[in-house]
Amino acid sequence: MIQTEVLIIGAGPVGLFTVFEAGLLKLHCHLIDALPIPGGQLSEIYPKKPIYDIPGFPEILAGDLVDNLLQQIEPFKPTYTLGERAETIQKDEEGQYVVTTNLGTVHRAPVVFIAGGLGSFEPRKPPIEALADFENKGVHYFVRDPDLFINQEIVISGGGDSALDWANYFAEKELSPAVTLVHRRNNFRGHRDSVQKMYDLQDAGKINVVTNAEVVDVKGTNVLDTVVIKHKSGEMEEQYTDVWLPLFGLSPKLGPIGDWGLEIEKNAIKVDPADYSTNMPGIYAVGDVNTYPGKLKLILCGFHESTLALQSAFNIINPDKKYTMKYTTVNGIQGFDDKENDEKEEKNLSLNGHNKVH
Amino acid sequence: MIQTEVLIIGAGPVGLFTVFEAGLLKLHCHLIDALPIPGGQLSEIYPKKPIYDIPGFPEILAGDLVDNLLQQIEPFKPTYTLGERAETIQKDEEGQYVVTTNLGTVHRAPVVFIAGGLGSFEPRKPPIEALADFENKGVHYFVRDPDLFINQEIVISGGGDSALDWANYFAEKELSPAVTLVHRRNNFRGHRDSVQKMYDLQDAGKINVVTNAEVVDVKGTNVLDTVVIKHKSGEMEEQYTDVWLPLFGLSPKLGPIGDWGLEIEKNAIKVDPADYSTNMPGIYAVGDVNTYPGKLKLILCGFHESTLALQSAFNIINPDKKYTMKYTTVNGIQGFDDKENDEKEEKNLSLNGHNKVH
Ligand SMILES: Cc1cc2nc3c(=O)[nH]c(=O)nc-3n(C[C@H](O)[C@H](O)[C@H](O)COP(=O)(O)OP(=O)(O)OC[C@H]3O[C@@H](n4cnc5c(N)ncnc54)[C@H](O)[C@@H]3O)c2cc1C
Ligand SMILES: Cc1cc2nc3c(=O)[nH]c(=O)nc-3n(C[C@H](O)[C@H](O)[C@H](O)COP(=O)(O)OP(=O)(O)OC[C@H]3O[C@@H](n4cnc5c(N)ncnc54)[C@H](O)[C@@H]3O)c2cc1C
Repeated sequence: MIQTEVLIIGAGPVGLFTVFEAGLLKLHCHLIDALPIPGGQLSEIYPKKPIYDIPGFPEILAGDLVDNLLQQIEPFKPTYTLGERAETIQKDEEGQYVVTTNLGTVHRAPVVFIAGGLGSFEPRKPPIEALADFENKGVHYFVRDPDLFINQEIVISGGGDSALDWANYFAEKELSPAVTLVHRRNNFRGHRDSVQKMYDLQDAGKINVVTNAEVVDVKGTNVLDTVVIKHKSGEMEEQYTDVWLPLFGLSPKLGPIGDWGLEIEKNAIKVDPADYSTNMPGIYAVGDVNTYPGKLKLILCGFHESTLALQSAFNIINPDKKYTMKYTTVNGIQGFDDKENDEKEEKNLSLNGHNKVH
Repeated sequence: MIQTEVLIIGAGPVGLFTVFEAGLLKLHCHLIDALPIPGGQLSEIYPKKPIYDIPGFPEILAGDLVDNLLQQIEPFKPTYTLGERAETIQKDEEGQYVVTTNLGTVHRAPVVFIAGGLGSFEPRKPPIEALADFENKGVHYFVRDPDLFINQEIVISGGGDSALDWANYFAEKELSPAVTLVHRRNNFRGHRDSVQKMYDLQDAGKINVVTNAEVVDVKGTNVLDTVVIKHKSGEMEEQYTDVWLPLFGLSPKLGPIGDWGLEIEKNAIKVDPADYSTNMPGIYAVGDVNTYPGKLKLILCGFHESTLALQSAFNIINPDKKYTMKYTTVNGIQGFDDKENDEKEEKNLSLNGHNKVH
């Protein structure tokens, strides 16, 4: 079990900045995200796009903002459960919340911050009946660790950046004996550079590009060994492969959080704008996932919401302490050094848990 | 008269960012500040100190944040009345607010944003009775334009950065036949580099440094010609001078805004947290100057407050238009180009005003 003081569901920009403001209050955070990397929509949807309305940045690439936030929270040593979706929540006898993921990882904390944005990003799955039988047995919707696919024959489907980037990656590094890229259309939606690189690798005979075609079936005994490709012409073709990566993008779903007993309005969690608390004491909702009169789904608003909400959360965690805000310019940043972490870890162990970091 | 759509009182970080968010809504802004430069507390109190809690900046000097904000709002061509204090407010027959400064400059707008921080920064004046007779006649509390003092003998009092920086400036550039720096103590509070430079200039015979002493009287016929310096030893000394700059820092005062009929609580303006509106329709208060349940006097909070408040202000200015928020990454920034400004200027002229820019 992972014990922390503030459990954050969602490692988008707002969840990340929550770690910083919690750190100023000397509260340790653990983050859960369904995606394999932090950054939320910024990492998943538009890492290469410039944002213009982050105060103090006339222009910043979304991916760079995420990098900056990660650097800013580094002194507070957050821990992560990535690639897992928070599925259930319960209150235990001591009044702490216990949150379990789809893969069974258990987390416990007196305070939960839901920074779930538009919801957890779920892969768009092609409508193939046999698909479920081969998930994680040759069929993967994310590339969490490319080393797992080394020396295997790979078919990738999709026309966007993920599909292009991974096809290029495996082909360029010659990590796979055969890389095939299958795309329904003839033109690709990805970054111009990535498309160019893919054509160059095709010319060099390193990627087999199949356009105007799609994978319509998967076969195998226990594990995947064949994909069935249907060409626009109607022609069907079977191709041997160890791995199929259907990379059709991810779409967000509020998902399980919608069933936790929280008050929902307009597909978002209703909060008290005085401290962004939900109807369940100790649970706060910040960023795109919440709603209140005048709400704007903007990054800069989430930063403010987290900051205010943590003042309220501090009182739940430390009912006897009074916190007086101090300016960072005056006090600097007192990060969590290793000694403190060790102490925390001991504390966790004494609660019969262990600190799992992905 | 200066006509604008959103009149902002206070050009601190929050006032500045208000220009940006207003610009996204195609609203033109004019800013008034008692200080001769924008940036509020950041420029006046701690330009060289690093701030750690601006989201996305692991560390940024306060002065650099101000520079970045100025760059960020540049496309929206804000105009300024600097070095003047907003003194009175009235509603005219058309329901617009008319704001007049201590120097008599008149501004008019349907919406006013008070981003006055802790109040307008007023110079700390030494307790010398005759002082008022020589203000702007040889005695100056700010250096608004150093060219005005060229070739004049200058006495500067103070031990902080302003005093040091200006003494160094006039001495280093040899703009004055005699620069004297008078300081009550023997050690200076300024930046180490500035203190070192001052001593170097003293060694070079370019600054006359008088420590453990203070100016206790001023004399002259019509204009200043003499300061009386009292040494710690008790010794009194008269020194001829054209200019005396008592640079003892500035202290903020809510000042005239406190008498405008706004609801005041804890020396701040009470606002509705739904849109940061005050009890006077069309007047909003954002940043350090406002108060509401849970308020934190932080820069990042002011950014959020302005953003939300402008949505509400937009409806006052454009009662018939509906604004739908669009992401800057998707739409980019449509700055106010010169054509638009010309049109605005014509509009202003037709209202019998002229656009004054400092
Ligand atoms: C194309 C585009 C352009 C944009 N441009 C701008 C702009 O210019 N300026 C601006 O301010 N905003 C912009 N936005 C909006 C901005 O991206 C969001 O406001 C911001 O991402 C919200 O941050 P967040 O941390 O609240 O949520 P998100 O970024 O959505 O992150 C939420 C995270 O929570 C995770 N999560 C949710 N539920 C669970 C669960 N049950 N278990 C585990 N993990 C879960 C998700 O996987 C996700 O990673 C834009 C959005 C898009 C799509
Ligand atoms: C030493 C110090 C360290 C700080 N560190 C941090 C930090 O680390 N992080 C953080 O978030 N915050 C910090 N702060 C607080 C931060 O500076 C304020 O929150 C911020 O300046 C508020 O911005 P503002 O725009 O609301 O007001 P201000 O910066 O106060 O600007 C208000 C402006 O309005 C003008 N004004 C007021 N009344 C009038 C009038 N009647 N007519 C004309 N002009 C007027 C003033 O002259 C002033 O320039 C610190 C403050 C200090 C003093």
